[in-house]
Amino acid sequence: MPRWEPDARHRLVTAALHLFSEQGYDGTTVTEIAQRAGLTKSTFFRHFPDKKDVLSAGQETLSRLMADGVAGAPEGATPIVAVAAGLESAAGAMTPFNRELGPRLHAVIATSAELQERDQLKQVGIAAAVTEALRARGVPDPVAALAAEVGMLAFKEAYTAWTAPDNQQELTELTRASLERLHGALAELG
Amino acid sequence: MPRWEPDARHRLVTAALHLFSEQGYDGTTVTEIAQRAGLTKSTFFRHFPDKKDVLSAGQETLSRLMADGVAGAPEGATPIVAVAAGLESAAGAMTPFNRELGPRLHAVIATSAELQERDQLKQVGIAAAVTEALRARGVPDPVAALAAEVGMLAFKEAYTAWTAPDNQQELTELTRASLERLHGALAELG
Repeated sequence: MPRWEPDARHRLVTAALHLFSEQGYDGTTVTEIAQRAGLTKSTFFRHFPDKKDVLSAGQETLSRLMADGVAGAPEGATPIVAVAAGLESAAGAMTPFNRELGPRLHAVIATSAELQERDQLKQVGIAAAVTEALRARGVPDPVAALAAEVGMLAFKEAYTAWTAPDNQQELTELTRASLERLHGALAELG
Repeated sequence: MPRWEPDARHRLVTAALHLFSEQGYDGTTVTEIAQRAGLTKSTFFRHFPDKKDVLSAGQETLSRLMADGVAGAPEGATPIVAVAAGLESAAGAMTPFNRELGPRLHAVIATSAELQERDQLKQVGIAAAVTEALRARGVPDPVAALAAEVGMLAFKEAYTAWTAPDNQQELTELTRASLERLHGALAELG
């Protein structure tokens, strides 16, 4: 019977981040991550299929938050307004844990080709979920994919600004500002 | 001393495609691919780092063709006109080999999660190369990324139409039409 493991996921992600920083991604085993987190290897595998998935853990949550936000936008909202609702939903759910881990996550990902691939695939997955949610609202195909891409770019830009050491703004504010800027860039392109 | 191996890459890609269709991606070894192609395993590894890379072989070529096209666009061209030049350059280089293999490639990729990931990463890589080429022309960051994404969507759409059994149009014609449609979709979004 599994022990009750409050925050096991958080602890595993934090432990993995520390170990990857200290001794590299390739040089770290799942057993070491579990030990550092004070958990067992089998607990690790209840939460993540593989070592390479531990840092892209938030993908499903983020995809669901964005897709739900898009789905919940008022009827008749333009694609960009629906995307804004998706970003609002995702940004509102980010915690101090996400904020604190962001820059370290970024630094560790930059050290490993495999982690960079995971990160790129994570972004492709989130964009696909947003595209799907827009299609479900009746947004035609290429417009849906482009609007989702605009949303992804806005979220990435805002997230980077949010995790900067001297930032004082809320993530929701920052995503709104980024989306507005990108919407302007679209007009420039169109 | 390596033998002279005319078309070794083509033969390896074709052999891999056949074997993946017949017996699955997971059930196929590099040795079998090399044998089917009438080549040695070491020849395989001179051309590809790994089994998973054999079907995304065109990435570097495609990235280079698109980036060169973008770089060669007339001075003062808008980002979309530069992207059009990139697509023109890539579309013009596609051969009957690419056309014939396209649908089979697509079908095989759909059977394996690992190949789907490779394919997604390939697309991310090409988009990054186009973004970089646009940046080098002085296109600001988010506009460059969006314009590259528009180009990717246009190329994918056109490539799919080109490889359809009843298609009579040239790929360059199809990419121009797709890009025009997507440019219209941009205006709708912006």
